[in-house]
Order: sequence, then structure tokens, then C-alpha cells
Amino acid sequence: MTPSTTRRLALLALSLSPMTALANEGMWMPGQTKEIGAALKADGLQLDPAALGDLKAAPLNAIVSLGGCSAAFLSPEGLVATNHHCVLGSVQYNSKAGQDYLTNGFLAAALTDELPAAPGSRIYVIEDLRDVTAAMNKGVTSQLDGIARYDRLDANRKTLIAACEKQPNRRCDVRPYYGGASYYLQQQLEIQDVRLVYAPAMGIGNFGGDTDNWMWPRHTGDFGFYRAYVAPDGSSKPFAKDNVPYHPKSWLKVAKDNLKENDFVMVAGFPGVTNRLRTAEEVRFNFSDYEPLWQRLFADYATQIHRATAGNREAQIRYASILQGAENYEKKLSGDLAGADAINLDARKGAEEKAYRDWIAADPARAAKYGPAMRALDAVVAENNASSLKSLRQNLLGRAQLLSSARLLYRWAKERAKPDADRESGYQDRDRRPISDRLTQVERRYLAPIERQLFEAALTEYRQLAPADRDAKFEAALAQIGLDRLYADTKLGDTPTRIGWLDKSAAQFEASDDPFIKLAVALYPGDLDSEHKEKERAGRTQAARSVYMQGLLAYKKAQGQPIYPDANGSLRLTWGKVTGRTRDGQIWTPFTTAEGLVAKQTGKGEFNAPEAAIAAIKARDYGPYADPTLGTLPVDFMSTVDITNGNSGSSTMNAKGEFVGLAFDGTLDGVISDWAYAADRNRTIHADSRFMLWTMDKIDHADRLLREMGVKGK
Amino acid sequence: MTPSTTRRLALLALSLSPMTALANEGMWMPGQTKEIGAALKADGLQLDPAALGDLKAAPLNAIVSLGGCSAAFLSPEGLVATNHHCVLGSVQYNSKAGQDYLTNGFLAAALTDELPAAPGSRIYVIEDLRDVTAAMNKGVTSQLDGIARYDRLDANRKTLIAACEKQPNRRCDVRPYYGGASYYLQQQLEIQDVRLVYAPAMGIGNFGGDTDNWMWPRHTGDFGFYRAYVAPDGSSKPFAKDNVPYHPKSWLKVAKDNLKENDFVMVAGFPGVTNRLRTAEEVRFNFSDYEPLWQRLFADYATQIHRATAGNREAQIRYASILQGAENYEKKLSGDLAGADAINLDARKGAEEKAYRDWIAADPARAAKYGPAMRALDAVVAENNASSLKSLRQNLLGRAQLLSSARLLYRWAKERAKPDADRESGYQDRDRRPISDRLTQVERRYLAPIERQLFEAALTEYRQLAPADRDAKFEAALAQIGLDRLYADTKLGDTPTRIGWLDKSAAQFEASDDPFIKLAVALYPGDLDSEHKEKERAGRTQAARSVYMQGLLAYKKAQGQPIYPDANGSLRLTWGKVTGRTRDGQIWTPFTTAEGLVAKQTGKGEFNAPEAAIAAIKARDYGPYADPTLGTLPVDFMSTVDITNGNSGSSTMNAKGEFVGLAFDGTLDGVISDWAYAADRNRTIHADSRFMLWTMDKIDHADRLLREMGVKGK
Repeated sequence: MTPSTTRRLALLALSLSPMTALANEGMWMPGQTKEIGAALKADGLQLDPAALGDLKAAPLNAIVSLGGCSAAFLSPEGLVATNHHCVLGSVQYNSKAGQDYLTNGFLAAALTDELPAAPGSRIYVIEDLRDVTAAMNKGVTSQLDGIARYDRLDANRKTLIAACEKQPNRRCDVRPYYGGASYYLQQQLEIQDVRLVYAPAMGIGNFGGDTDNWMWPRHTGDFGFYRAYVAPDGSSKPFAKDNVPYHPKSWLKVAKDNLKENDFVMVAGFPGVTNRLRTAEEVRFNFSDYEPLWQRLFADYATQIHRATAGNREAQIRYASILQGAENYEKKLSGDLAGADAINLDARKGAEEKAYRDWIAADPARAAKYGPAMRALDAVVAENNASSLKSLRQNLLGRAQLLSSARLLYRWAKERAKPDADRESGYQDRDRRPISDRLTQVERRYLAPIERQLFEAALTEYRQLAPADRDAKFEAALAQIGLDRLYADTKLGDTPTRIGWLDKSAAQFEASDDPFIKLAVALYPGDLDSEHKEKERAGRTQAARSVYMQGLLAYKKAQGQPIYPDANGSLRLTWGKVTGRTRDGQIWTPFTTAEGLVAKQTGKGEFNAPEAAIAAIKARDYGPYADPTLGTLPVDFMSTVDITNGNSGSSTMNAKGEFVGLAFDGTLDGVISDWAYAADRNRTIHADSRFMLWTMDKIDHADRLLREMGVKGK
Repeated sequence: MTPSTTRRLALLALSLSPMTALANEGMWMPGQTKEIGAALKADGLQLDPAALGDLKAAPLNAIVSLGGCSAAFLSPEGLVATNHHCVLGSVQYNSKAGQDYLTNGFLAAALTDELPAAPGSRIYVIEDLRDVTAAMNKGVTSQLDGIARYDRLDANRKTLIAACEKQPNRRCDVRPYYGGASYYLQQQLEIQDVRLVYAPAMGIGNFGGDTDNWMWPRHTGDFGFYRAYVAPDGSSKPFAKDNVPYHPKSWLKVAKDNLKENDFVMVAGFPGVTNRLRTAEEVRFNFSDYEPLWQRLFADYATQIHRATAGNREAQIRYASILQGAENYEKKLSGDLAGADAINLDARKGAEEKAYRDWIAADPARAAKYGPAMRALDAVVAENNASSLKSLRQNLLGRAQLLSSARLLYRWAKERAKPDADRESGYQDRDRRPISDRLTQVERRYLAPIERQLFEAALTEYRQLAPADRDAKFEAALAQIGLDRLYADTKLGDTPTRIGWLDKSAAQFEASDDPFIKLAVALYPGDLDSEHKEKERAGRTQAARSVYMQGLLAYKKAQGQPIYPDANGSLRLTWGKVTGRTRDGQIWTPFTTAEGLVAKQTGKGEFNAPEAAIAAIKARDYGPYADPTLGTLPVDFMSTVDITNGNSGSSTMNAKGEFVGLAFDGTLDGVISDWAYAADRNRTIHADSRFMLWTMDKIDHADRLLREMGVKGK
């Protein structure tokens, strides 16, 4: 469909019913329920739409963030359902040779068998989301630009966060919406004791692997369970033996009604990043230069990891999570690039932006109000583009985990010398634990010989940069040390040693002989310089973009079009319906079934479901979980809900707000929706709750959890 | 579906109607029409099945071979329709900078504008196919083994061919069927003056490119036209200005009825190679060792060509054909490997072969008759496997086109010194023209700097072989010459010089300073030695396999199952119906349409149909070519006919034997059918004749050809 057709259809529908045409587009803020309530009801919601705007009531207060993934409480005992790929790091962390939970899955037989999740695992329970635009803009005049503006906003943000976090165990963030035209503060209870409760075998949780990733038909049981633990007094505490399950205010009930084609579904979660409101030039640059290089670097990285770990199961386990991330993102980028071509994105964005700019130019008052910011934005975007392309290669040094650790530690030492409020964001006292967690995580993802190979490959690529864009001090230090000594002499591979550096002074770093610390010290001046330049541009970008966005909001309002902000990791709501997709020569039907899983089963590699599952399917031992319409057990289903990265693990709810599945993926030719929503392509893939329950019941015998969720009698 | 289920269904159906269950499996010899006639009629054939066994009558005598591709006469004036990818080499041959027929397509405005096809292009009109098993086995006793057996069969073959080719302008071949249990002689009229008449733009003929290759939904207009020319007296002559169009005895009429879902279709053509009758051990080795390496080598080769020709349009044109071949085959191999896993090929072949061997073992007479051959076959298969894996790398030297030319020329000189009948097959007087054609073809596919890069890469891979498996004389000669001199000093890049060596003596080669000729002379003893060993194994293989196959034929006969021989490049008939495919979560509908093509159009790269085509589709300017059921213009369709490589360009016929399209591809998850027919996966993709006619009429204005084909009035 051409852009003009899309727009025409949208406008036509708008004239009949303002929201229906947009029903399945949009990651809406909970506060926008009044704008979308009528459409939600029209599409089948059986709850009061206002309930979806209330963070203090069900279902929204059952929704939690894992930081990067979304999740939800499914029991009054703090049981949290999310995707298998969201608990994968914890499964991996608890696996080792001879105890291969990755392959075989993990089920805690009793509460006491639930295992600490990977370091850094958190469950964030959202408590408040409030507009702090005025407080953020205190002292921010239109004249304030560049670094001064950046610093002012940063100081205001820190003040707001510090005030919020005075409450114990709260984690607060302030994020820009509409490019900084407004800001909201999100307040979350931080659960620090997270335990791994259940993950099915890799052959269920990641059935189809990278081959099926972003694909339909899909047969992946992408589910896993954590549990939130707190101190006996109910306060959030790190792992302790006598901690007890957390009791959430709400939890989702597992639906008893069978989900079927065309049913209303909705998803609440924490979508990470979309770029639907970027300028046409930013989009053009992204697809002509940035993503092609990025994709190539990821593809090479995945190849390097495969080669380096070939035939070495221990190495494969350690690098599984990094590899899966690289492959997943490479595939996503290839889908982005193909999708941009397919929907003729450049022309579409160009036309949309021209219409907006024409509207501005058509009125002298508007031109005066928004014109200068537009020109300033165009100028700084050109600078940002050039810089970001270089950064892709500069950031490759970050692949060396010990070098990253050393840079993090040295920066920590430098910042720690300042008063807390003056420190760089991310290096305040509140950040000590996440930093410590990151440093600990390295332990299970690191093997020196593999690292060395990967670092060498990264260096080769880094050295494609012009000399002026490389760090001469770093190069000189590395040349003096040599790669052999780098890995032979460092002590940072030892976790207690690495963590121990958290308490050392900058002078101790500067006197250290550890080769990675030497490199970190060498990189420091260049890092600071880059950061300063970046902040200066960020200040100018924010000044220009916030005004550009105010203009865009005014333009959309004049057109009678509601508008939602780009995803920014905050809580959003999206809804749609269960439906497949029809294209020329091909139809996707909305459900896959257990028989389809067996048809894909090869018994090896990525298509290797447990024998018990295959046998049960062949015996049609589906218990109460078969769908009467399909006549068999559904595995995954497809819907039109509008999600992106970060929504992984989001509970899917039916029209009553009951649990019917877990969103876990999109389709490759729909990922372009991160840049421009494409209604005909955008589909979300969900693991069907009935497949999850069947696996828990018939294959893994997780009766304890099923009883807790009210699925089985006590 | 498991193998046992397949077999059960087949047997069940057999008990009702002997052929229906096999209706869509099989590449049948024309002589087998009595075995399959009832099934053909039951499935909808409106002709007398006996007509399909007659090489001297329509439709079979309208079917021609291009040597590697199939084709058919579509007019009384010798107009031949085939695939675009089958005329691609000729389009490329006639293209150069500033005359880019590859991109823009080519249409001869008048007969006199038709261009000579690429050197070596031939049209072979089949005249006879007769059983010569007795003549081939003259003097071949069961005791005759190894090299002696090979030589005896080779001598008999040459005698038969020489007798057949005494008739002027005939090309004859003798091929083994059922592993040499029988032999047939195929006699063809060789048309030597082949001209390029019409090829649509690359954006039609190869729309979707490598991305869509082996895929459905598909929107490729894979058609192109040659014309056969002969001397004014009707005899076959090489290109001459006063040659005239050849008048075939038959030609296919273009169907007037609209083809629709479930219609009967059939394809007659020249499938190249299938391996459905190989032993389980041969299959196991192929998928565990041989194809994985082969695929990797092809993938690397494609990458090397892409890199070497990047940004160089001239180089891209010259290497387009080689590159397309490499990419196409790499993808095919990846499909093979995935398909073998998916259908559990090892287990299926193992079970099938066990059933056969059990049947042999169950009867002492059968065990005595076939047992020793089985054991001998198993032994020689192990040797063949080891050798073929080495050959994959040894053959990489053949990527250097001038080295291949020099080896061919030197061998030609050596063989030419012997009496014709004593020479190696392929180096007899009858072979001079094909050799000369191959040497000429290099001209348009060669650029020294590109060749050098590709040869260096091939050498790196060659040197992965153990020293004993490399050619020491070659390595020494190459070391002495050096790669720089190799390409700087050779004169073989010049076509007249290269061709001139056809008339030189072996002594002149041995005295030559040309670096590639030096390498060829160095390689010669090793080449002869390898060839001798290979023949020795071939003799033993034939002795064992022919008896093994006789046993298999007896076994199948005892089961009441008709059996067709593996494809071997000879004329075969297959039929089926127009139908899509249903899998879990996905349905393929059998037709794609012009609107689907527009939806894929990006205007660049592989999805770049000519603007005129896009505009005509948008205007729905379909003339009489729209299908009334679909309500639009069909582009490609899918059927169950059973084809493989070599069938490319085969005319697809309806139940009346009329032209309805051109077979051009399969689907990636069906290619495993080359090893074991998978009824649920096997689908053939055809270009719909209506899309072809529409393109010729509305886009390229090929009215001259449409009139000739009876589609437009004179």
C-alpha cells in the first residue's frame, strides 16, 4: 500500500469514527485512556476503559518491568510470568557443565528450591507516573543551549530522582516524551530478591531458535517464571535465606474462556525505543548508512562467536546469551532495512514531513514560532549522524568485557571523588549496586581465550576508522602491552578482584600494572572528551527537537489526530485483535498448533522439543487445554497489537483483562513499524497460555505453580 | 509425516487404484505411459495417454533440450520458449557497457535483428530414445570388474554413439538407467544456429532475484525466447547470415482456456540428476559431510565474487552468470540440508533400505543372486565417499578459467594424437565444437584482476587439503611462476590465441612459456592418475550397483509398485495439479497476481520491475490476460509436478497438451525431493503464460511474436 493510500484510508475512517482507524496503532500512555476509551470499547474491551488508566488498580498494577523485559504477577504469592528469553540469563547463570538447565529446563520443586536469578535481576513494580515537565524546565530558557542546557536538565532530573528515591527501595526515572516537549517521572518499587522458579527446556522455550526468530508460522513456548521475594517485614531486600514471597496488590487471573480468531486482546508493558517521530533526514541516514554498517558488524560478531566457541560446550553456554542477542538484533536490522525499502519509507517520511513543514510555513506566526528550531534541528541532526557512524566502530572496544569493566571501574573511582549530586548520571551512590551486578555478570559470560579472539576481531574493525577518530593513547598503550600479555597478566578475570576495585581510588588505578586498567586509564581523556561533545550536541538537539515536537503536536491536533509519544521504556498500553495476515499467494492463519510443532521437530539443533512433549502430542494428550474451535492444542497466536523491544514478556490480556498469553516477538517484515507504523505488516506473536499450561501440566509437572495460579485445584 | 505413514498410505491407496497415490511422484520415461496411462486419465488428462509416449508426435516432439535447460517450440517458425535464466547467458553475451540488455531486456524488432546466442548455445530436437542395454553389455561379464569393465562399457558406448552420429547433425548419447541395469540411446537433431529473440527486463525476468529464489509467494516472469535457425536447405548449420528459421514438426499451442486451481498440468523436459535410488549410506554421507562442505565453498565463492566486483558494473556483468549459479546452488544445498533434517531422511532411507535388504535376505536364492553385489557396493561406496570429499577441494582449481582452458587444451592435444575411437569421451572429433565453444565463452566471463582474486581465494581453500591430496608438481610450478606473473604473462586471456591452441601438438604445449600452460602440463600426470582411479572405482560401482538395482526392481515389482529411474538428463514426463500448500499457521494459495508484484516493488535492487509494468498494473491495464476467477492478472502459479534441475524452461501443458506456462523453480523446503520424494513438500513454481503474454503485449510490444504464436491476429 502506498503512503498516500494509507493516509487516505486513515482520514476517511477518521471522519466516521475518530479512533477506529488507529485502533491497532499506538503505544499509549495510561493517562491517554480518555482519548482512546471509546475505541477500546468499540473494539470489544469489556472493562471500563478508565480502569486501564489507573496504576493503582488491576490490571495495570499487576504489570511489572524486569528492566529490558516486561512481565506480570500471576499469583498472590509474587509469581511473575515473562518470556523464556527474559529469564534465559538466569537459567544460564545457574547452569554449568553437568547441570545444563539451558538444555533441560529448570523447575523448582518447592519454594525453597527457587534459585537466585542472575546478578542484577530486578522486578520493578510501577507505583506512579506523573508529569514533571515544569520541574524539569526550571531554569531552562530558550536561550540556554548546548552543554549548559544539558547540564541544567541533568541537574533537574537528578533532583527529581533523588527526591523520589528518598522513599526506601524505590527506583525512579525521568524520561523525555515527544523529544523533550514533556517529561514524566516513573516511580517503581524495586524488588531486589528475584528467584528463578521455572523455565521449560530450551527445546520448548526457544523451539525454532534463530531460524524461526521473527518468523511465522511459529511454535515457540517462550515462557518462564520468576518470583519476587522481600524481607519478612515486607520491605525490599537483597537475597536472604529468610526472605519471603512478595504479595502484590493485584495479579492477573488465567482466562477460562478459549481465545479465538478476531478476539480483542491487549498488552501492557514497557516498549523500549521507537523512532516514529524522527525527522525524514534522520530516517534517511539511518537506512542508507547507519543500520547497514550496524547490521554488518553484528553479523560478523555472531560469526566470530560461532567460530570461537565451535565444539566447546562450556564456551557455548557462556556466550549463549551474547550470541543470541547479536543474532536477534542482526536479523531485526535486516528486517528493518528490507522493510524500509518495501514500504518506501523515504518517500513516506519525506511526504509526511513536507506536509508538516508546509503547514508551519503557511502561517507566519507558526513559522516564527517553530521555524528557527526546525533549522537548528536539521543542523544538529547532520552532526549527530556523522558522530553516530563513527561511534558504531568506536564502541566495538566495548566487546572486550574486561576492558569495559576496567573503564567502568575507573570512571566510578573518578566520579566517586565528587559529591553525589555532581556526579555523572549512572555513577551516583544509587548506581553502585547495578554497577556491581554488571561486574559480577561478566563471570558467567567470560572465557579468556574466547575473549581474546573476539577482541582481536573487534580491533581490526576499530582500526578501519580514520586515525583522528581512533584513540591514540589507547593504541600506544595497547602496542606497549601486546595482546598476549593483556590476557595473561590481567587479574580482572577474577570476580572478587574485579569487584574489589570498586573501592579503590583513581590514584590506585593510575598506579596499577593490570594491563586492562592501563588501557582504561589511557582511554579516559578521550572518553571524557567524546562525552562532552555528545552532551553539547544533546543539549542543542533537545532545545530544537522539543520545539519541533510542540509544532508537530499542534499540527496533529489541528488535523484531529491523537498522537502518542515514541516508546521510551515507560509503561504503555496497546490493543488489537487476534488475526492472521493475507498477502498475495500466502495466508497466515492466526493460530499454530501442537501438530505443527511436531512437523518441524527434527530432534536436533533448534528443532528439538523434549521427547515427552512429542510423545504427548502424538498421543493427543491435551487434557483441558485443547481449543474446541481448533480441535487441538494451540501453541502460538498472532495479533495486531503494537509492540516493540522491551515488550518481551508482556502478558497478553483478553477483553476482561485476563491472562491469555505472552507477547514475545514480531515478524521480520513488520519490524519497520519501529520507524513507521505499517498496519498491513505489523503483527505480534504471542505464546498461547494454553500451550504454557499444557507444558507445565503434562510435560514438566509444575502442579505447584498451576495450583498457585488457580488453574488446578489445591 | 513419518516414513512409515507415507508407505502405509501409499500401499493402502495402491490396493484401491494402483497409480493414484503416486500420481504426482515420478519423472517417467515416455515408454512408461502404459504403466501410468490410467492414472493420467484419472487425474484429468484429455489426450490419449499413448500420445505421450510417442516421440514422433505432438506434444513430445515440440519439446526440446537446450543442454542444461528444457524448452519447447511455440510456433511453426522455430520460436522456442524457455526460462529467462536459461537465456541469461546469451543476454549477458550480447550486453556490454552502454548496451545493457541484462537490465533493460532485449526484443528483436524483426527476424533480421535476432542476435546470435552465446557460443555453445544449441537446441536439441529429440528424435529417438531406444533401449541399448544388450549392445552396451556386449562383452561385459559379471567377472569383468574395475578398469576393464569401465573401458568395455566406454568402448560400447562410443561405438553406439558413433553409429548414431553417422547421420548428419545428430547428437546422440547413451545414458545408464537404474544405475546401469539398463541403457538407452537418445538421438537428437542438433540445431547449431540459435538466436536470441526476446528477453524481458531483469526486473521482470529475475524479479525478486536471489531473495525470492526458491521461495513462495513468487512474482518472477522467468521467460525468454530463442529461435532455431538452419541452412536454406533445412540442414543444421552454424550461424550464417542466410540461415532461415527452422520449421519444427510440432509446436505447442497457447491455451485459450484460463488455468485454475486444481487443474491438471504436466511438464515434459530433461531433469538432470536425482538421487532417490541411492543407498542409505550414500545418503548419510551426503548430508553429514559432502553437502555441508560444498555449501560452505559455494557461499564463500559468492561472497568472493561480490567483494571482487563491488562497484564495478563491467565486472558485475561479466560475473553475473557465474555468481547467479553459485548463489542458486548454495541456496539449494541449504534447502537440501534443512529438508533432510525435516523429513528425517536418514531414518527414512535406513528403514526403506532395511526392508529391501531384509527381503533379499529372506530368500536364499535372492541372497545368492544379489548379496555379493550389495556387499561390493557398500565397499566401493565407502571409497567413493572419501574420494569425493577430497575432489570438492581439488576441483576448486577449476575456478581459474584460464587454467581450466589450458588443461582442456593440453588434454585435447594429448588425446588428438590417438585414433578417434581410442580417445577419452569428450575429446573425440565430435567434441571439438563444444570444446571450442567453452573456450570462447570465457571471453565474456573473464577479467584478469577479478580472476586473480578468485583464484587466490580458491588456492587458500585448496591448500586445506593434506599434502598427499594436493598436486606437488602443480604447487612447485606455481611457486616458481608466482601469481603476479601468472596473470601478467599469460596470452590465454586473448580468445583467438586461446582457440589457436586447439591445433597445437602436445610437444608445443610442453615447450610453451605461457604460465597457465605450464601449470596445465604440471597437473596432467596427476589428473590422469586421478582419472584412472576414478574409472576403476566407476567400473566396480557399476558392476555392483546394476545388480543391486536389478534386485530393487524385483523387490518393487513384488510389492506391485511401479518405479521410474532417477533423473539422468533424458526426456521425462511428470504431471500433477495446480494447488497451493497448507501447513500449520500458513497457507500458500496457488496463484500470485500482479498486485502482489507491485506490493514487493521497491524500485531498486532485486525488486525493480520496469516503470511501465508498474504503471500498467496500477491502471489495471490487463487486456484479455486477466483471469476471470482471480479477477486480475496471474503472475506465477504452483503445482505438484515432480521436477528438478534441468527442467528449467520446461513448458507447462494443460490437460489438452496446450501451453499454460513455464516451470522455473521449486521451493526450498521441497528440494529434498531430489533425495527422497516428499509429497507434502514438493511443489513446482511456474511462470503463468498470461503474465508472459501480458508482458510481451503491454510492456514490451512483442506483437510480432504474439502474432507468430497465434495469440494476436495477423
